[in-house]
Amino acid sequence: MGIRVFITGGTFDKEYNELTGQLFFKDTHLHDLLEMGRARLDLEIRTLMMVDSLEMTDEDRALIAHQCKHCEEERIVITHGTDTMAETAAYLQTNVTGKTIVLTGAMIPIKFGSSDGLFNLGSALAFAQTLEPGVYVAMNGRYFRAGNVRKNRESGAFEEKV
Amino acid sequence: MGIRVFITGGTFDKEYNELTGQLFFKDTHLHDLLEMGRARLDLEIRTLMMVDSLEMTDEDRALIAHQCKHCEEERIVITHGTDTMAETAAYLQTNVTGKTIVLTGAMIPIKFGSSDGLFNLGSALAFAQTLEPGVYVAMNGRYFRAGNVRKNRESGAFEEKV
Amino acid sequence: MGIRVFITGGTFDKEYNELTGQLFFKDTHLHDLLEMGRARLDLEIRTLMMVDSLEMTDEDRALIAHQCKHCEEERIVITHGTDTMAETAAYLQTNVTGKTIVLTGAMIPIKFGSSDGLFNLGSALAFAQTLEPGVYVAMNGRYFRAGNVRKNRESGAFEEKV
Amino acid sequence: MGIRVFITGGTFDKEYNELTGQLFFKDTHLHDLLEMGRARLDLEIRTLMMVDSLEMTDEDRALIAHQCKHCEEERIVITHGTDTMAETAAYLQTNVTGKTIVLTGAMIPIKFGSSDGLFNLGSALAFAQTLEPGVYVAMNGRYFRAGNVRKNRESGAFEEKV
Repeated sequence: MGIRVFITGGTFDKEYNELTGQLFFKDTHLHDLLEMGRARLDLEIRTLMMVDSLEMTDEDRALIAHQCKHCEEERIVITHGTDTMAETAAYLQTNVTGKTIVLTGAMIPIKFGSSDGLFNLGSALAFAQTLEPGVYVAMNGRYFRAGNVRKNRESGAFEEKV
Repeated sequence: MGIRVFITGGTFDKEYNELTGQLFFKDTHLHDLLEMGRARLDLEIRTLMMVDSLEMTDEDRALIAHQCKHCEEERIVITHGTDTMAETAAYLQTNVTGKTIVLTGAMIPIKFGSSDGLFNLGSALAFAQTLEPGVYVAMNGRYFRAGNVRKNRESGAFEEKV
Repeated sequence: MGIRVFITGGTFDKEYNELTGQLFFKDTHLHDLLEMGRARLDLEIRTLMMVDSLEMTDEDRALIAHQCKHCEEERIVITHGTDTMAETAAYLQTNVTGKTIVLTGAMIPIKFGSSDGLFNLGSALAFAQTLEPGVYVAMNGRYFRAGNVRKNRESGAFEEKV
Repeated sequence: MGIRVFITGGTFDKEYNELTGQLFFKDTHLHDLLEMGRARLDLEIRTLMMVDSLEMTDEDRALIAHQCKHCEEERIVITHGTDTMAETAAYLQTNVTGKTIVLTGAMIPIKFGSSDGLFNLGSALAFAQTLEPGVYVAMNGRYFRAGNVRKNRESGAFEEKV
């Protein structure tokens, strides 16, 4: 069962620039994580963009939707910044049908020792293999349906809207 | 949706004894992993034993089956050594029905920087929430049905028997 | 041989705020590092400030010099941001005499898996035990005399001025 | 100031074999540590052997002494298992003169997240640059003179004999 993985950036892939002291994007750490997890899945991985999700535009979301619609796979995982993950999920739900799409990300950059990224990736890939068509957010070990999820800005955790 | 987690030991929870240079069991690292993964799940965690899975006896397996049958939850994750994980899964399939049971573990101890444990735990908890009743092994980002899985001793990866 | 350790902040002690995505100071990680290094030294540790070294003022430097002069110990290690470490070293050389003072820091926060902080701390404590009175910068495994050291902004490494 | 580094094995360089669950020697991690520490030292690194120090023979020690005597550098760091580090130090003191030789190692393998190896290496390289000719053990942030040091088997720490 092939799974398509789209990378869009987010905290997940941020690195520390030791010359400027700023966080920035270099390359994705997805391959390192899959190797660490000893994943033996049939994955097709593409980087669509490398942006902070607060800077993600409607055009960016249209591009992601286009890629989801036109890729061969029925099951898709998208790594995404957490700040607007719920918005992108809602957008994809409106614009893509008939596929299982799971968005995930990280609260702490992968390159930090204590990141949640590896855990989230493991759960997102599992949800992508087992959930029926639809758009979902996989965070905090749980899955949420697009349209009924938001990030709680105070706790940092995802929760149902109602 | 409550999930019961049973801890039985395995590489997952091995630590390095710096006085003897041997690997040994102290406490489980499960709580640390759940905190790192920022898990917000309704979990009930119990340590049943702390053994190397090569030393797991029929009596141990009977105890695990008993606990699976009599716990309140319909969904169960079991951390287990990889060497006899397939055997315990087959045993549970014969002895417990009507529940979703997912066994997982690690090839590398959690306390090592590069462990697959966090990835496996994320996927096991996701599979436990989504798979229909039955017994499964969750390793390498995949799930396998009990009875049709074995650990490849040469590659260290899990695979279907046929 | 007692060593006084003064903490002033710098990259060394920066943490990632997962709610804002910013780096910030919480507590010092010095005690964790000393425990990891299994240090068995007679250390007296004090936090003087927690600042980015680019924001360190003359008043801050006067405070550090005052503390160096008036503490009981003859040997002192100071953790400091790398950007103005050379400036503070020069200031201390002018204002404190008769003590062995070693400044050190990190290019990458301790909380990142790949920090140089533990290495630098090990070398700074060793230099503090063995160098004659004077002010030094300990970075890159080397020691430099105050007044003859600068941070190369392009490579991030410390080097002699001449 | 050139420093010669001799690698002899020990806990420092042990890895976890995920197929057998045993600790073993593969390659040295010294280069990774030097890179992490951003070391900018003039080092000449040689692996002399890769053994558990409990299995180190008189012949092995004679080889190490021979290499110390005949290498060009006046300053030498030796990575060594902790169990017989004091014995090798005493042997070298009897057999090599006129050079500064510092033995160091680790209580926890480098590949474990919480190893003391990076700290010890930083201090050993610093002591090698600053101590007068003689043979020393650098552990726990301190240095000990050969002949007056032993490993306390209960605490795991190094201490003076008297």
